[in-house]
Amino acid sequence: MKKIGIAGYGNLGRGVRAALAACEDMELAVIFSRRSLNATDLGVDVPCVALGEAQQWRDRLDALIVCGGSAHDLPEQVPVLAQWFNTIDSFDTHAKIPQYFDSVDQVAKKAQTTSIISVGWDPGLFSLQRLLGEAILPQGASYTFWGKGLSQGHSDALRRLAGVKNAVQYTIPLENALAAVRRGEQPQLTPESSHRRECFVVLEDGADAKSVEAAIVTMPNYFAGYDTHVHFIDQATFDRDHRSMAHGGFVLRSGDTESAQHLMEFSLKLDSNPQFTASVLVAYARAACRMHERGWHGAFSVFDVPPADLSTHSAADLRAHYL
Amino acid sequence: MKKIGIAGYGNLGRGVRAALAACEDMELAVIFSRRSLNATDLGVDVPCVALGEAQQWRDRLDALIVCGGSAHDLPEQVPVLAQWFNTIDSFDTHAKIPQYFDSVDQVAKKAQTTSIISVGWDPGLFSLQRLLGEAILPQGASYTFWGKGLSQGHSDALRRLAGVKNAVQYTIPLENALAAVRRGEQPQLTPESSHRRECFVVLEDGADAKSVEAAIVTMPNYFAGYDTHVHFIDQATFDRDHRSMAHGGFVLRSGDTESAQHLMEFSLKLDSNPQFTASVLVAYARAACRMHERGWHGAFSVFDVPPADLSTHSAADLRAHYL
Repeated sequence: MKKIGIAGYGNLGRGVRAALAACEDMELAVIFSRRSLNATDLGVDVPCVALGEAQQWRDRLDALIVCGGSAHDLPEQVPVLAQWFNTIDSFDTHAKIPQYFDSVDQVAKKAQTTSIISVGWDPGLFSLQRLLGEAILPQGASYTFWGKGLSQGHSDALRRLAGVKNAVQYTIPLENALAAVRRGEQPQLTPESSHRRECFVVLEDGADAKSVEAAIVTMPNYFAGYDTHVHFIDQATFDRDHRSMAHGGFVLRSGDTESAQHLMEFSLKLDSNPQFTASVLVAYARAACRMHERGWHGAFSVFDVPPADLSTHSAADLRAHYL
Repeated sequence: MKKIGIAGYGNLGRGVRAALAACEDMELAVIFSRRSLNATDLGVDVPCVALGEAQQWRDRLDALIVCGGSAHDLPEQVPVLAQWFNTIDSFDTHAKIPQYFDSVDQVAKKAQTTSIISVGWDPGLFSLQRLLGEAILPQGASYTFWGKGLSQGHSDALRRLAGVKNAVQYTIPLENALAAVRRGEQPQLTPESSHRRECFVVLEDGADAKSVEAAIVTMPNYFAGYDTHVHFIDQATFDRDHRSMAHGGFVLRSGDTESAQHLMEFSLKLDSNPQFTASVLVAYARAACRMHERGWHGAFSVFDVPPADLSTHSAADLRAHYL
C-alpha cells in the first residue's frame, strides 16, 4: 500500500482525499497545510501537519500531491518539496510551464526524486489528446473547446472591477464552430470565434449597470472580441444558481490521409472540476511511485508517462483484458 | 531520417506507404512481399523484395511495419522478423494477444530488438482510452461501441454460407444505448444489446433467400442474439454501394467521485479504416525506433509507450506548445 500525502487542503485537496479512498493500492498518510487544521474537524484519521514541518515526513511518503494554486503556491512550494518527496501537481499557467519544469527538474534530479508536473485535464488529458492527434494525423488541424464551465481567471477579472460585488463567468463552446469541425471543414478558429462568455454579476449598492457592462465587454485579453453576455442578478440568485463546479470540453483532430478524412474526438463532461482533476492527480501519483522505483528521477509531464503506469493492473492483465 | 520497411502490401501496406510520405522524419526503404511485386508497377522508387530474403536487410532498417493478417500471417511472420528488425504490427485477435505477445517477446529479448504489437485503433487507441478511463475513474463503467463500419470477420462469415455469392456486414451502434451511457445511467450492456447488424447479400443463382436469411440470423457467435437485418441486392448494387472502408466507434467511461459524476468520451470517424490504422502504425514506428535506441528490448504494447515517443517534437517543444 503506497503512502500518499496531500499538501494544501482546498477543493482540490479534498478531492484527492476522496479519490485516494477509492483506490485499493494507495492510502492517505498525512495532510500538510499552511492553515492550522485539526484532524478531528476534518474527519480524517491521519495527521494534519504544518507545511513548514513537511521535511520531517521525508522517507515516510511514497508521493506527495501538491494542491496549491498555480499563481503563487506551486512555483514556491514544489521546488522545495521535491527535495524530499516524489511530487505530483496541477500547475496550469501554460505560458510559464517551461520555466516551472526547469526549476522542479533541477531539484528533483539532484535529490533523486520524481516529479510529474501539470497533471489534470488541461494541461493533462487534453494535452495527451492533442499530441496523439497530431502524431497520428500529421496533415490536419487540432481544436480545443472549453466548457460549458466556470472560468476561475475570468471570474476573478470580473470581481476586480469597481462596482462588482460578486461575479462568475461561464465559457461556452459555440455549437456551430464545433459542428463545422465535426463536418471536417477544418475551419480557422480562434478562442474568440469558437466560444462565448456568459457573465453573472451582483452589483455593489449604487453601482451603474451600464458602465459595469461596458467595462466588461471591452476588457482586453478577457472579453474584448468575444461574444460576451452580461446578466445582473441579486446575491440570493447568485448563491442559489452559481455554485456549480461543472466543467468540460472537447479536443478534436481533423486530419487527412492519402484519399480519406478522419476525425478523432475526445470530450469530458465533469460535474465537479476539482473532483475530476483530483482523480487524474491520484492516477499519476501511482505512476510517479513506479517511475521512481525504476530510477526515473527529475521532472516529467504526462507526455513521459507510459500509460500502463497509471493502472493498478499488471502488464499481463492489461494485455489480456484491456488491449 | 529513419529507414522504415513494409512487409505485406495490401490495403494496410499501401496506407503505411502513404502515411510515411506524410512524415518528415521517416522514409520508406523497402517493401517485402510474398507476391512477386515490381517497383515500377507500384510506382515506388524503393526495392520490392521477396519476404524470404528479408534477413539480408538486417542492419539496414530502423523499423519494419508488418502488415499481414492476424489469423495466419502475423503469428508466423513477426516472431521470425523480430530476430532482425524492430517490428510494429496490428495483431487484433484479442483472445490470442497474450500468447502472441509471449512468442514475440521471447525472440525480441534474445535478439535485442524492439517490437510493438497490436497497434491500431482497436486494439490500440481504444485500448489506451479504456485504460485511462478506468485508472482515472475507478468507480464506474466502461463502454466500447464499434461502427458504423464494415466488420471483416462478419462479412467473411456471411460469405462462407451456401448460396451466398458476395456479402458485407455493417456493425452499427444503437443510438439509445449510447444515449443512456452519455446520460450517466451506467446501463448493463452487452455487444448484442448495444449494436445492430446490417447484412447486404448477393445470392448465388437459384439460392433461396428465406433459408439464407434464416441461416444468417441464427448463426451462433456472429448474429444470433443481435438485431440483424438482411438485405438482398444484386452484384451491380454491391459493387456500387459497398466499397466503403469507413469505420469508427466510441469508448466511454462513466464514473463517480465523492459527490459528482463524470463522462469521458473518445470517438473516431474514419473514412478509411486501413489508411487510419496505417497512420497509427507509423506513429508507433517512430516510438519503436526511440525505445530501441534507449535499450528497451522485447515486446511492448501501446500501454508501454511514453506518448512523447510518438511525436516528432522535442520534449521541450511538447511542454511549451502542447501541454
